[in-house]
Amino acid sequence: MEIEELRKAHPEHWKLASAIRALAMDAVQKANSGHPGMPMGMADVATVLFKNHLKFDAKAPKWADRDRFVLSAGHGSMLIYALLYLCGDEQVTLDQIKNFRQSGALTAGHPENFLLDAVETTTGPLGQGVATAVGMAIAEEALRAQWGKKLVDHRTWVIAGDGCLMEGISQEAIGLAGMQELSNLIVLWDNNDITIDGRVSLSDKTDQRKRFEASGWTVFACDGHDPVSIDEALTKAKKAKGPVLVDCKTIIGFGAPTKSDSYAAHGSPLGDEEISRTKEIYGWEHGPFEIPAEIKAEWETIGTRGAEERGAWEERFAKLSAGKQAEFTRIMEGGVSKKLTNAIRKFKKEEAEAAPKVATRKASEMVLGVVNEACPETLGGSADLTGSNLTKSKGMEIFNPDNRKGRYIHFGIREHGMAAAMNGMILHGGVRAYGGTFFCFTDYARGAMRLSALMKVPAVYVMTHDSIGLGEDGPTHQPVEHLAICRATPNTLTFRPADVIETAEAWEIAMTQEGTPSVLALSRQGLPTLRSEYKPQNLTAKGAYVIAEAEGKRQAILMASGSEVEIALKARDILQGQAIGTRVVSMPCMELFAQQDENYRKKILPPGAVRVAVEAAVRQPWDRWLLGERGREAKADFVGMDRFGASAPAGELYEKFGITAEAVAEKVKALL
Amino acid sequence: MEIEELRKAHPEHWKLASAIRALAMDAVQKANSGHPGMPMGMADVATVLFKNHLKFDAKAPKWADRDRFVLSAGHGSMLIYALLYLCGDEQVTLDQIKNFRQSGALTAGHPENFLLDAVETTTGPLGQGVATAVGMAIAEEALRAQWGKKLVDHRTWVIAGDGCLMEGISQEAIGLAGMQELSNLIVLWDNNDITIDGRVSLSDKTDQRKRFEASGWTVFACDGHDPVSIDEALTKAKKAKGPVLVDCKTIIGFGAPTKSDSYAAHGSPLGDEEISRTKEIYGWEHGPFEIPAEIKAEWETIGTRGAEERGAWEERFAKLSAGKQAEFTRIMEGGVSKKLTNAIRKFKKEEAEAAPKVATRKASEMVLGVVNEACPETLGGSADLTGSNLTKSKGMEIFNPDNRKGRYIHFGIREHGMAAAMNGMILHGGVRAYGGTFFCFTDYARGAMRLSALMKVPAVYVMTHDSIGLGEDGPTHQPVEHLAICRATPNTLTFRPADVIETAEAWEIAMTQEGTPSVLALSRQGLPTLRSEYKPQNLTAKGAYVIAEAEGKRQAILMASGSEVEIALKARDILQGQAIGTRVVSMPCMELFAQQDENYRKKILPPGAVRVAVEAAVRQPWDRWLLGERGREAKADFVGMDRFGASAPAGELYEKFGITAEAVAEKVKALL
Repeated sequence: MEIEELRKAHPEHWKLASAIRALAMDAVQKANSGHPGMPMGMADVATVLFKNHLKFDAKAPKWADRDRFVLSAGHGSMLIYALLYLCGDEQVTLDQIKNFRQSGALTAGHPENFLLDAVETTTGPLGQGVATAVGMAIAEEALRAQWGKKLVDHRTWVIAGDGCLMEGISQEAIGLAGMQELSNLIVLWDNNDITIDGRVSLSDKTDQRKRFEASGWTVFACDGHDPVSIDEALTKAKKAKGPVLVDCKTIIGFGAPTKSDSYAAHGSPLGDEEISRTKEIYGWEHGPFEIPAEIKAEWETIGTRGAEERGAWEERFAKLSAGKQAEFTRIMEGGVSKKLTNAIRKFKKEEAEAAPKVATRKASEMVLGVVNEACPETLGGSADLTGSNLTKSKGMEIFNPDNRKGRYIHFGIREHGMAAAMNGMILHGGVRAYGGTFFCFTDYARGAMRLSALMKVPAVYVMTHDSIGLGEDGPTHQPVEHLAICRATPNTLTFRPADVIETAEAWEIAMTQEGTPSVLALSRQGLPTLRSEYKPQNLTAKGAYVIAEAEGKRQAILMASGSEVEIALKARDILQGQAIGTRVVSMPCMELFAQQDENYRKKILPPGAVRVAVEAAVRQPWDRWLLGERGREAKADFVGMDRFGASAPAGELYEKFGITAEAVAEKVKALL
Repeated sequence: MEIEELRKAHPEHWKLASAIRALAMDAVQKANSGHPGMPMGMADVATVLFKNHLKFDAKAPKWADRDRFVLSAGHGSMLIYALLYLCGDEQVTLDQIKNFRQSGALTAGHPENFLLDAVETTTGPLGQGVATAVGMAIAEEALRAQWGKKLVDHRTWVIAGDGCLMEGISQEAIGLAGMQELSNLIVLWDNNDITIDGRVSLSDKTDQRKRFEASGWTVFACDGHDPVSIDEALTKAKKAKGPVLVDCKTIIGFGAPTKSDSYAAHGSPLGDEEISRTKEIYGWEHGPFEIPAEIKAEWETIGTRGAEERGAWEERFAKLSAGKQAEFTRIMEGGVSKKLTNAIRKFKKEEAEAAPKVATRKASEMVLGVVNEACPETLGGSADLTGSNLTKSKGMEIFNPDNRKGRYIHFGIREHGMAAAMNGMILHGGVRAYGGTFFCFTDYARGAMRLSALMKVPAVYVMTHDSIGLGEDGPTHQPVEHLAICRATPNTLTFRPADVIETAEAWEIAMTQEGTPSVLALSRQGLPTLRSEYKPQNLTAKGAYVIAEAEGKRQAILMASGSEVEIALKARDILQGQAIGTRVVSMPCMELFAQQDENYRKKILPPGAVRVAVEAAVRQPWDRWLLGERGREAKADFVGMDRFGASAPAGELYEKFGITAEAVAEKVKALL
């Protein structure tokens, strides 16, 4: 339909949608940066969605049983900001709209979940929203199975662009959602045929409908500018079994006389003249940022459409027992199970006595038995390495369409999709998600792991096979730089426990995080229990501690993590045998050590003694501790990797790359 | 067909295929580690491929016009090792087979391109082989267009498993290949329905045929154990237009009485008893590693099947002019164009005079104009950010099915697929590939970028928008940890040029690498020309150099890279104004600086003066230079980022995060 025709056919809808478009054009123009074309193209779909379908209450953006709305095409952030302002969101004022993309504004360039309550997930890196939404839909299914339909019964809606669908992560998300038959997931595809470089056909000719159908999705289509067509498609989508794609045929920058249907509308302000001509075409006679009161009022009615439903839900919730209410609230808010600390202490006590020689991946499996019992909110899985990551603790059932009470997910060979789904589950609330793969394949998951950190999502990454110690699989599978990568990433706790006790402590810390993801780097090879004396305190929580004190005058301090703590202790034996007093510091988590006060850090790493660190990885993160925050603290050296690994049995590789107690002792002596 | 029936129907084929299976079982058993099931499942397909279709000469694995064979399911490495040994490859002896996965063996756990000539690309991280093969097929098309069918006319064959197809990168590869209509690309899907965790249906129910068809592929199917069915499918595949998927229905661990068709055959030795029973079922009456002479002879005949064709090719090649022969050899071997150095010098001279204030991404576009003219072997592109990355220099035509002479590729929104395709183009030979995206989205491409480094592929990554300096797009788009990530990765040159001159120098170095990828981290924002005095030498090649000397007694050394060199120079002005002698070191490439001899490094960073580094990124990589290799060299501090960025105009962000000349000067004074 032509614009003229649409205006006449649906005058009320047209005004509502025009308000979104006008705000998007004005805000991008004022900021002199941003993406007007997408909000202009999807305003009609969004209007119908918010007006007739989305279950939400603008005054209670965190209500547990709301529908989740994910703007996967996050560059079109003005779409969601305009919707929130119009619906009466308390954070998104008109001033915020006017301050779009400015310092300190809640209306950041891309929607940020940590700035706005109503933004379910940060988006911008393409494809992430779709994959995160799959996790939200999984969490909804899981909670519905546990708590019943009266408390949990909502949908996850996604707006995704061509870019989202071209990214590989989208395939992982589509495949996972299809296999899991997530009927509560609806993706609205902004099919505008434009990418930044031009027409989609420059780089892709995929039949997206067919591709989604291939993974078991149901596909509907609509004219993305005709409210009747949109409404019909969304109505059908809600009734379908399994996940749904709605192909919304749209025009980017809809209505802009010279820039619509072109990449010119994508990522730059339209310019004052184009805006003025566009508004003329819309029949929108209002100044910049000006929304007529009756249109605002109509939008605010839409914004409180869900208030009644929310009230009914709250009545149902109030009928639960006090204990159930508290438990539901706890898991939705990410609170820690009261059973956890005691359970971990009991485990530590038993294992300190038993002192097993086990790989830390095996230790992790043992701890998980305890964690999963103490914390009913865990949902775990692996990217098709269950028997290697040891992420499935005893008795766990599989989460699938036939058993939504299962708490273990076969994520498939989809590291990136898994990580994003974990983000989605945790953001949804009610779930603490963990997932495993080989540590080296953090490479595949980086995009979503970074978002865990940025979004303050306390996901737990169970990353096994953490060094050349994995042996024969060779350098493609042997992490060398990955500890440096995780440690360089802000707001991420990187744990590399040395034995079963530190593994339990790391899990405890990870499970009590409110806004920080954890990476557990775990060994493939067996490691002795080094902490055979039971202590209730969580020593790992300090990040580093003295695991063996120097006898006699302290001349050297050895630092190590994970499987190399054993090597450091052996080096200490050699050095003490030569009357060189040597302290060994176990450093399972550099980030936590950095957070300790200066006194503690100085106590563990006093100046004077020479320092040698040993870790089967690159040196980069160690310099800080070797050399001291401000330099001049100590003479220092490092034993580790400065190249990629090789394929051979693990013991031989440690010899080959010179990561041995003897080499450590020699380095110390060379510094004295 | 049952095994008994197959044996009888095709006795000669059966023996050839059984030789592969027997070697795979024996080698994995002896190594006590590895993956027997996949070679056993795909032995029939591989036999038919090598016997009837693959154009190759085992005695000349690097012959330019050979078909490329990529084992994307790299864990099945014994398949390729067995084939190479049987065909008479000179590197893969029987001793190598017996030393499978052992220290120093060429027969590593996963196939490594840097160990064996006949291994076209390292595989193991799933999906990479498929995506790399797309690059090989692109290179073949490009070279065929330039050099004609008489010199370049071959195919790329891929064996891919379910894991490869579940990884997101496969979708990027499938989409790119489909759009590019790569008729020379054939993927043989090992459709055995098994992943490590069990049946594929545990995690996926995608109709793969339909998915490939959705992206314009032609699909054929065969019984992957029936040589007639396989041969028919492969024959059809060669004739089809556009890329082809052959769905080869196979049984993992084919013939193993208790472990076939199960994940038990995937990743562990079968065990002596199972092997012995399997060999009985095969009718294979030979001891471990024993191949009867007549079967070996038959395989060696297959191995030299292409010798005649190669001879004919060499005759055609010999008819070229000496100049053309030299040029073809140069580009196939990755040699450097003789025109490059002079062209870069001329450019530097002109720009030193003009001294423009341009973003280094713009500077890169200007240099590319020179590079692309001097080096006809470049093939460049961007992951749908052409206008932002500025990777398309003037006059470049688009490479697509209608114009195979184009040298610019619209890779689509596919960072990972782009990086893998770049690897494939370069590994194919004849092409130097570069590709651009935002620096932050190295996260999406990491899997393939790491392989560039491991495989010694001199790809050039043009990574623009390299810090908070990109401004309003906010923290999802602002790299903070990515310089640390690239610098932590072995065998990678990370350049962060400060102005147009350093950008030219960085490009020159990147273009002359034989076995090291380069990452160019480039600014969005304009930067002044700091090196306005022309010097023919490439100062960037030293990694770091003195860009401004202290006046008076040297009390402080400032170090910086990229956009922060300007800030360091301004800080120097402040400090010199207060009579604090201050040297400024520009450090565009830490890795190259680390390679200089100790004298040079001491000359640039002499002990004594206090040191402050400034970079709009995390501190981790700087500690080494701040504190000195062995500590105790200097008092030091850092000005940079210790958290994620924010959405605001760039200038405001530098203020907000305290990355200013004033802050640097204050840090220096606090140390004095």
